[in-house]
Amino acid sequence: MGRSILPTGFAQGIANTLYRAAGSPDLRIRLWTGDEVGAPPSTSAGTLVIRSPLALVRLAIDPELELGDLFVQEQIDVEGALDEFLAALLRREPKVGVSHWIPDSWRELALSTGRSKAHQNASHHYDVGNDFYACWLDEGMTYTCAYFPRPDATLEEAQFAKMDHVCRKLGLRPGDEVVEAGCGWGGFALHMARHYGVRVRACNVAEEQVAYARERAEKEGLADRVEFVHDDYRNLHGKYDVFASVGMLEHVGMDHYEELGSVIDRCLRPNGRGLLHTIGRSRPQLLNRWMRKRVFPNAHPPTLGEMMRILEPRNFAVLDAENLRIHYRLTASHWLRRFEREADRIEALVGRELARTWRFYLAGTTASFETATVQLFQVLFSRAGNDHIPLTREHQYSGDAPIFADEALDGAPRDGGSLGER
Amino acid sequence: MGRSILPTGFAQGIANTLYRAAGSPDLRIRLWTGDEVGAPPSTSAGTLVIRSPLALVRLAIDPELELGDLFVQEQIDVEGALDEFLAALLRREPKVGVSHWIPDSWRELALSTGRSKAHQNASHHYDVGNDFYACWLDEGMTYTCAYFPRPDATLEEAQFAKMDHVCRKLGLRPGDEVVEAGCGWGGFALHMARHYGVRVRACNVAEEQVAYARERAEKEGLADRVEFVHDDYRNLHGKYDVFASVGMLEHVGMDHYEELGSVIDRCLRPNGRGLLHTIGRSRPQLLNRWMRKRVFPNAHPPTLGEMMRILEPRNFAVLDAENLRIHYRLTASHWLRRFEREADRIEALVGRELARTWRFYLAGTTASFETATVQLFQVLFSRAGNDHIPLTREHQYSGDAPIFADEALDGAPRDGGSLGER
Repeated sequence: MGRSILPTGFAQGIANTLYRAAGSPDLRIRLWTGDEVGAPPSTSAGTLVIRSPLALVRLAIDPELELGDLFVQEQIDVEGALDEFLAALLRREPKVGVSHWIPDSWRELALSTGRSKAHQNASHHYDVGNDFYACWLDEGMTYTCAYFPRPDATLEEAQFAKMDHVCRKLGLRPGDEVVEAGCGWGGFALHMARHYGVRVRACNVAEEQVAYARERAEKEGLADRVEFVHDDYRNLHGKYDVFASVGMLEHVGMDHYEELGSVIDRCLRPNGRGLLHTIGRSRPQLLNRWMRKRVFPNAHPPTLGEMMRILEPRNFAVLDAENLRIHYRLTASHWLRRFEREADRIEALVGRELARTWRFYLAGTTASFETATVQLFQVLFSRAGNDHIPLTREHQYSGDAPIFADEALDGAPRDGGSLGER
Repeated sequence: MGRSILPTGFAQGIANTLYRAAGSPDLRIRLWTGDEVGAPPSTSAGTLVIRSPLALVRLAIDPELELGDLFVQEQIDVEGALDEFLAALLRREPKVGVSHWIPDSWRELALSTGRSKAHQNASHHYDVGNDFYACWLDEGMTYTCAYFPRPDATLEEAQFAKMDHVCRKLGLRPGDEVVEAGCGWGGFALHMARHYGVRVRACNVAEEQVAYARERAEKEGLADRVEFVHDDYRNLHGKYDVFASVGMLEHVGMDHYEELGSVIDRCLRPNGRGLLHTIGRSRPQLLNRWMRKRVFPNAHPPTLGEMMRILEPRNFAVLDAENLRIHYRLTASHWLRRFEREADRIEALVGRELARTWRFYLAGTTASFETATVQLFQVLFSRAGNDHIPLTREHQYSGDAPIFADEALDGAPRDGGSLGER
């Protein structure tokens, strides 16, 4: 075997350099010659199979981008569980050349999403086709982090529990008017209307999703209470008791955070509550370049500090922030296993290249949450001085109606009577 | 009546200008002449009585500082509830001259606390004497925000509940080693040891408090499990399962946030959890000048975004953040009413001037939380990739032992068996 372009010893040298540049992770590399480098087989989480000298050279030049591209093009492959292999890679800090940790100075780089581009960005990702997503999402078509009250909950149970968890955080009451920015296939909007008796106006720039959501609202007899709008969140108007956005912020460039803050400010009534649910980071970092270029154009998972650029300029106060990283790890793991089980059907549906793109992306997502390269934040907020907020978070877990502070304290805590002072 | 220094009409003009500069709040001003300006009596929350032309001039020149100073010196007084009067003032955005909202550009001003100064700062506030604090704090001498599971809980119940709430958030288990930075009179350290079976090393720079805490540990038979150290948090060493700091961060200048992060990084074991409990802001702003000069030298209540300067550079991930503003409003209101009830005893103990300083400060604190000029944040965190964290927050409310993710998931979620995948 072996091709004449690269002498075998030289190819092994490049592979070794590449391996060390990646921080010597617990995995192996096998060349087209059969030669192997890397961790001892006993500690290896998987083997990267490089099929040609060209693939090796491309990988050496730009590993962050080419690892995914070469996988999609079948120029490389992975033996062993793909998510475990990628987790082993992410666990190490790469050295120069595999610049996984982008310098801080780069993070200010505009990851701008112009209004006309927002449609393209979301379409790119979501208009693969509803049938495709139905192959591996839960029955309710919820494409955001689920919530596992027990570790052995099913994905369906966990997505239901997530929607309930968000509704309870927001303290929804019958009659509340809710606006949802980025509504996916409409599952959450319909859940709020059905189980909490609220009215919802929900927007989304992905046309096929909106069509699906509208049909669903009709079918479920909720079309009079849930309105799905094919539009950008920046065009939202009207006044609402609740602002909710589950899984949209990742697609909003940081350049637009202040604008998002102004939209929320414009739409939220004085005693309203809001919630932002987003993939995030524990430290500022750009999204992996392959993900940004091939899967989520211009996406950016923010740190909690970066998210404050939405809320602090408008004097919104964070009431409650919860990190659900472990829950997304479980969610993504469910998706990946369903995806792999349905691999043949998916390939027939969208073609081999797109199927491999998505498999690599889902495995990478699972690995990213497992290695904590990313986090998941749910941030509940209201105007700083709003007393119409739950006094504690107990109702999130008891399922009882929340006790709102303004109602419980009767507006007169200072006279002592209602405070139980002895 | 009237003194000849200021013609009456001129004095009224100054008072009127002052009133409008404060944003025309719902209160009145009465001059030494008996003349009044301000809101109609029907909407007024209280009357500011200005006793002399000099007091009026001083107030006009530097209202932010002089309002408190003149009150302490009895050159001005307030008719009506002091906290209600101050809340009415805080509800309005002052115009030029009453620069309550400091420009953003100022916030970067170093509020530095040099190591030698830290002792002075804390001493200034806390060495008024334990007897003084005992007059108006709860029996357990807890001088931080309480937690009211029910609005009618007593202050004693609410302080106990707060300590339990923090212990549950931290997922304390018997045998855990805890380090506490800024331990006050030791109540929380002793609570953790007594009720959760942990060992605690707690530090504080206020000498009289440490002496009190040590005596208490002896008396309660916990001296073998709780060590109180008279030292600065920056000198902490050793490795711990838990880092806790309740009410110290307000005294740590922002210049020292990175240093605090490195202390936590140094002291926390890989699978440890940490909690920072602090007065904060919904938007960046310096502390009122009177508070900074007369009560809390160099204190700074941070926004959540500012707090991230402690955690993000060290790759700590926020797991849970809770805003307890309403609870501090209730706590401060309890303190103020106890303080006012014990006014004579307190005056005999510390003198009239200090008593008035403290009454003004406690009323101001109550008003600040009522008007949301300040917030209260409890931020739970761990190293970004730590799986030894509770899977949900349900145990915080059920009182059951937390389910730790690493134990529940058995380290192998990807094989499917433990995930309940169908």
